[in-house]
Amino acid sequence: MSQIHRRNFLGALAASSCVGAVSGVEDAAAAEPDPADPGDVTGALARYIVSARAEDLPAAVRKEAKRTLLNWAGCAIGGSRHETTGIAISALAPFAGPAQAGILGRHERLDILNAVLINGISSHIFDYDDTHLKTIIHPAGPVASAILALSEYQHLSGRDFLNALVIGVETECRIGNAVYPAHYDVGWHITGTAGVFGAAAATGRLLGLNEQQMRWALGIAATQPVGLREMFGSMTKSFHPGRAAQNGMTAALLAARNFTSSDHALEAKRGWANVLSTSRKYDEITGQLGSRYEILLNTYKPFACGVVMHPAIDGCVQLRNENKLSASQIDQVELRVHPLVLELTGKKAPRTGLDGKFSIYYAAAVAIVAGAAGERQFSDSMVRNPEIAALSERVSTIVDPSIREDQVRIRIVLHDGRKLDKFVEHVIGSVENPMSDAALEAKFTDLASGILPPAQIRRVMEMCWSIDYLPAAGALAKAAAAS
Amino acid sequence: MSQIHRRNFLGALAASSCVGAVSGVEDAAAAEPDPADPGDVTGALARYIVSARAEDLPAAVRKEAKRTLLNWAGCAIGGSRHETTGIAISALAPFAGPAQAGILGRHERLDILNAVLINGISSHIFDYDDTHLKTIIHPAGPVASAILALSEYQHLSGRDFLNALVIGVETECRIGNAVYPAHYDVGWHITGTAGVFGAAAATGRLLGLNEQQMRWALGIAATQPVGLREMFGSMTKSFHPGRAAQNGMTAALLAARNFTSSDHALEAKRGWANVLSTSRKYDEITGQLGSRYEILLNTYKPFACGVVMHPAIDGCVQLRNENKLSASQIDQVELRVHPLVLELTGKKAPRTGLDGKFSIYYAAAVAIVAGAAGERQFSDSMVRNPEIAALSERVSTIVDPSIREDQVRIRIVLHDGRKLDKFVEHVIGSVENPMSDAALEAKFTDLASGILPPAQIRRVMEMCWSIDYLPAAGALAKAAAAS
Repeated sequence: MSQIHRRNFLGALAASSCVGAVSGVEDAAAAEPDPADPGDVTGALARYIVSARAEDLPAAVRKEAKRTLLNWAGCAIGGSRHETTGIAISALAPFAGPAQAGILGRHERLDILNAVLINGISSHIFDYDDTHLKTIIHPAGPVASAILALSEYQHLSGRDFLNALVIGVETECRIGNAVYPAHYDVGWHITGTAGVFGAAAATGRLLGLNEQQMRWALGIAATQPVGLREMFGSMTKSFHPGRAAQNGMTAALLAARNFTSSDHALEAKRGWANVLSTSRKYDEITGQLGSRYEILLNTYKPFACGVVMHPAIDGCVQLRNENKLSASQIDQVELRVHPLVLELTGKKAPRTGLDGKFSIYYAAAVAIVAGAAGERQFSDSMVRNPEIAALSERVSTIVDPSIREDQVRIRIVLHDGRKLDKFVEHVIGSVENPMSDAALEAKFTDLASGILPPAQIRRVMEMCWSIDYLPAAGALAKAAAAS
Repeated sequence: MSQIHRRNFLGALAASSCVGAVSGVEDAAAAEPDPADPGDVTGALARYIVSARAEDLPAAVRKEAKRTLLNWAGCAIGGSRHETTGIAISALAPFAGPAQAGILGRHERLDILNAVLINGISSHIFDYDDTHLKTIIHPAGPVASAILALSEYQHLSGRDFLNALVIGVETECRIGNAVYPAHYDVGWHITGTAGVFGAAAATGRLLGLNEQQMRWALGIAATQPVGLREMFGSMTKSFHPGRAAQNGMTAALLAARNFTSSDHALEAKRGWANVLSTSRKYDEITGQLGSRYEILLNTYKPFACGVVMHPAIDGCVQLRNENKLSASQIDQVELRVHPLVLELTGKKAPRTGLDGKFSIYYAAAVAIVAGAAGERQFSDSMVRNPEIAALSERVSTIVDPSIREDQVRIRIVLHDGRKLDKFVEHVIGSVENPMSDAALEAKFTDLASGILPPAQIRRVMEMCWSIDYLPAAGALAKAAAAS
């Protein structure tokens, strides 16, 4: 037997049905006290997931969960007519099951597992969804996609729905905290790899799993991580939160029927955290469960582009509104910015909407002219608008290392000689300066306009704000579909 | 902005829609000549997958592919009535689509994506499927499960089916070679993580993807690896090849509609190989494509237990058959074995069938009494058989470091004083001493008996042997379902 075959003969044994025995050998070493024994991490989390009560949620948590839900629903409706969504539906609908759940912003109805996938994809297409800045997880996609579809399949009160949303977000963000940044740095798209746990937790809770079943659901989720960062820039990036939602729901559905899995999927020697990350902080998962809430750190993007341009857009919109500015009044716009702004978004003469997302000059100009920087301000036609293009040429930048990433210092010089100054200390949309409810509604309305009629847009937003009082959460899904 | 927020603000940027710009920054460093530049690995593989011709397959490759198919079908039929399969069907059938494809050994018909999952699970339940010893990949599960279901959905000739089976096995085993053993050692269940590529390649080829689409299919597959070794010992282990098959098929279906992904999913800086393995040998993927065939190294288990006991079982069966032995003639059985045999399978008095898989004493005794060691020789009732139990007590072992893992030296002393000796140099089922076609048929028959009637068993085996002459490969799927 050659050397390579010797090794693999034993390997085949390890992979064979004699796993108990192989584990026995390995456990002989592992049985010695391990100074870094993480304890029963999966068990502690599973107990929290199956037992956390809706009535114990602080008001601030309930409120942030509603903001999370509203922002997610707007993004999903906004992405619903995008080519990415259309392709996914046309590719998979021939194999889909009964019409159990709707697609936000569309008329199709699919089985819940496919609906979950499509809504998760749709909500991430514009990269405009929520961000848990500590981990860069987009928390809503995997969780809300899963439980909204489930709410059309079985009766769920809005109160239980909101509780499950919080539980799911806590689960994924805490697991993300435990492995960030090492896990992200190596190349995993953490929204998909941690998100699968959020979907399993939220769905499993609503399916009524017991603690053992919840351990298994987390195990079946752990074995299906989704998302390499290499996919950024392609449609597959949006696939990640959708597939994470679908995988997590699948895990919970299997566990509900006692499909067995590991009891210690998170912390085991060959479990999720050890295999997918070079460092682990298990206390982040189990510490202060039910009293510390990661969802309170969730943030929402006010502008449909990378955050590095947000301070300049924020300041320009403020100056425009405070001074009722029009482009024709303006001689020069001078931006003192963090060095990364020019490194990443220094494109001088963008030709397409996508190009515009990489031009600080265009972004400042469109913010002044349109007073906004949503998805439609980064359209091809808007980039070709002569007034905005002309104003872009009068925008200049000064790199200033004393300016932080969430700051900008702006001076606008008018033709009449007046100088207008604005210093943005914390950009809108940051934890320190969150978007207002009204701003979230404006964003939602902008995303949904042209897809749903105004009265329906208003109704969906009202249902998000009052979700915990809805007798049946499924009403939200029906209200958010195109008629 | 706190330190943690500073870092994550930039992280959020990297994760944002401004990916092009971020890549730009990183690429500034990457643009310098890289001494370890792997070249266009994904492209070379994609070109092979879309262009390899059935008529170029050597006869030995066609033959081994048929043996692979037959062994897989027997395992899938054998596992079809197991609790694991039943739970998966009952959990997921409520969400399944049209009755497009059958389940081997069962009467249910599901949409192709669900059929693929179930057949992949079923084929791995007994851990009795094929093994590519160089990587410990079980190659057939992800690939054959996918394309057999597809053959019921669209017309595929048996010739194209066999070609796709070879292409799929080459794809997954070559990718496995590139990262084994580092990838396996860290904790990935390589059958699922590499298998997803095999399923995507085989399905994508049969769907007629062009080279660009095949790159994307490999990308969508890469972002969905399945399987942590932590799941060994639970139902979730069998889930891995099934889900890999389903994920790979999903990838191909999406790519066929031009759902975009990375063009360099395998070798990119944050692609599959870099993220999921600490070492990479890309030549294993691209070297001698179309002339070196990994499927020629595929092996099949003759006995339904860990390979460490196989030499002793092999030798005992040979001595029994050569001497027409019965237990009552035997005074003593003496086994000189590799040290691992006792470490892993030293259980003295097994009480259950599963226990029996960890007892070299029981295994030798049942091999002499039954002349076989299939799944039914490891049943609870067989372990409790008094004649076999009594013979087990007359089996002794001597650890001998000069005996290799695939060897055994046996002496049987009869009551009449005769001594029967047998040295097994290469155990049956190894690359050096493969199972005969007749032995594969006997294994198939044993697995399928009680599930399908004898005439149907014979028909399915004949279709496997003649698959490349079948006008429609889907006939095999129909023949292998329960009526």
